[in-house]
Amino acid sequence: MPAKASKVTIADIAAEAGVSVPTVSKVMNGRSDVAPDTRQRVEEIIRRHGYQRRTDERYRKSNLLELMFHELESAWALEIIRGVERVAGENGMAVVLSESQGRLRPGQSWLENVLARRPVGVIAVFSDLSADQLAKLRARDIPVVVVDPVGEPTAETHSVGATNWQGGLTATRHLIELGHRRIAMIGGPQHVLCSRARVDGYRAALETAGLTVDPELVRHGDFHVEAGYKQLLPLLSLEDRPTAVFAGSDLQAVGVYEAARAAGLRIPEDLSVVGFDDLPVARWVGPPLTTVRQPLQEMAAAGARMAITLAGSGDVEHHRVELATSLVVRSSTAAYSGGR
Amino acid sequence: MPAKASKVTIADIAAEAGVSVPTVSKVMNGRSDVAPDTRQRVEEIIRRHGYQRRTDERYRKSNLLELMFHELESAWALEIIRGVERVAGENGMAVVLSESQGRLRPGQSWLENVLARRPVGVIAVFSDLSADQLAKLRARDIPVVVVDPVGEPTAETHSVGATNWQGGLTATRHLIELGHRRIAMIGGPQHVLCSRARVDGYRAALETAGLTVDPELVRHGDFHVEAGYKQLLPLLSLEDRPTAVFAGSDLQAVGVYEAARAAGLRIPEDLSVVGFDDLPVARWVGPPLTTVRQPLQEMAAAGARMAITLAGSGDVEHHRVELATSLVVRSSTAAYSGGR
Repeated sequence: MPAKASKVTIADIAAEAGVSVPTVSKVMNGRSDVAPDTRQRVEEIIRRHGYQRRTDERYRKSNLLELMFHELESAWALEIIRGVERVAGENGMAVVLSESQGRLRPGQSWLENVLARRPVGVIAVFSDLSADQLAKLRARDIPVVVVDPVGEPTAETHSVGATNWQGGLTATRHLIELGHRRIAMIGGPQHVLCSRARVDGYRAALETAGLTVDPELVRHGDFHVEAGYKQLLPLLSLEDRPTAVFAGSDLQAVGVYEAARAAGLRIPEDLSVVGFDDLPVARWVGPPLTTVRQPLQEMAAAGARMAITLAGSGDVEHHRVELATSLVVRSSTAAYSGGR
Repeated sequence: MPAKASKVTIADIAAEAGVSVPTVSKVMNGRSDVAPDTRQRVEEIIRRHGYQRRTDERYRKSNLLELMFHELESAWALEIIRGVERVAGENGMAVVLSESQGRLRPGQSWLENVLARRPVGVIAVFSDLSADQLAKLRARDIPVVVVDPVGEPTAETHSVGATNWQGGLTATRHLIELGHRRIAMIGGPQHVLCSRARVDGYRAALETAGLTVDPELVRHGDFHVEAGYKQLLPLLSLEDRPTAVFAGSDLQAVGVYEAARAAGLRIPEDLSVVGFDDLPVARWVGPPLTTVRQPLQEMAAAGARMAITLAGSGDVEHHRVELATSLVVRSSTAAYSGGR
């Protein structure tokens, strides 16, 4: 990080960039009526000098935290919202919620609106901001914290996640210890890092137990109910069908329940099922679901606190925090019975 | 509504109130350093004159919609958020989310923060703003729309709800048509109007079918899972136990499922269950839940549109809109079998 040199003025930046002072102001306020190369040059200079904004009315930050989802689809999102809302409340801040309508990368209008709102910080959930978007936010001292990043987290991105690999390992070991050998895995989207980690944990559990991974039993969904149903159903008609499934998410586990019901299989007598997340629904399905608890509220709260800290002192101890997952054993898993 | 007289100035208001111009400004900006009686007098004059604010920078509204919950507890809240988020997106606005931590009436700091943010409008979910809070918002031309109001909606309050009475009637008639006579009802909190309407619909269905309402079978919870469990369980050990339950909400129905399981009763063979809401969980429980669909997303969207319209032209056709509920028959209800 560059040293902060608070003596640099907007006039200095304008002179160095060869533009007028109003142009620098426009860039700083996120206005779109600036030529892209001019904007880039000005942002680069602002960043290099670590320009500290005057705290007059026009540049003062609001007391808003931006929370951005790529989709507001499941109870998963509500847990995240509650975690951020809690920390915002403790700090006298309010939460602005936005959704990038299923796209992993939010559009330009989202960014312009965020810059105009001058939030304390941005918490991006399961989303993939571009380098350009990150640079624009950084140029205005708006820290970004990503919860469960999709791409490889770089040293420049602050992020919070859960120990997904460990969770996948624990879930699969639980099934192995119950005597299961044919264990199916339904992951999330292949490009999503948290899903990869869960699948890798599954593989590690099998391989360290001396079992081989059957590629036929490893499928990928999108973490939602329908995917669990659709991915499991064909496996149930295999000659040597799986006797247990690690469903990758609680919602996929709900779909797995439906597929088992459709195939006339009882849970856990004929099929053991483990989920991931520990959403409220895990307790409500019949039978209650054994799952890997991911502390979503706490992860979101940690992300919000990180953003507030970065906006204040500007420094946090770690760029990446992973909170621990834990296995919650309920009634959807049972010892392998040997037959069908 | 008073006629708008756009020629009234801040100076006129200050003169009439016997205060300085800066004091009027403070009141209009929601600052707290004004004596309560002064504030009240100024607000009253502003309201009476229908003062139209100049649209300069200091008084301009933000593009924020305020969405206020008394609790962010269930998937219910997520449906509401999605509806408001959708309309906000269509109008280039962003949503600020806040929660009054379980209190039905949000506190003073919430109001001050809202006034400082100058939102387009406020959508209050299942909450009960005080007359004073409503007056303060009205004095600043910030419209308030209540979704599912707790108290009696007055002509001055704009609100959106569902046809709760009709929904309760339909749910109970469905059970009567299946041959059930001992039908229990678990309502929400007694003071909550939408819950009263559902219970009244239940009574109306029984009475118009020539059946008497047994007060012993009418219980009240708080719409959450645990309440369904706790309120139903004692009824199952009655000599003449109910053979069907209208659970008042989907989450209470989930609790009813647990109570039935604990008592060794099968659904629907031994006990028929109807929910209310049609949350995603209704499809996922085993067996899938027969329920009354309440169009939560559409209700929230209608509330958001109403607030935006009020902020613009200042007028809507109806103060109160009720969207229709509908019965969704799944697998948790069956014909009365005569025995146990």
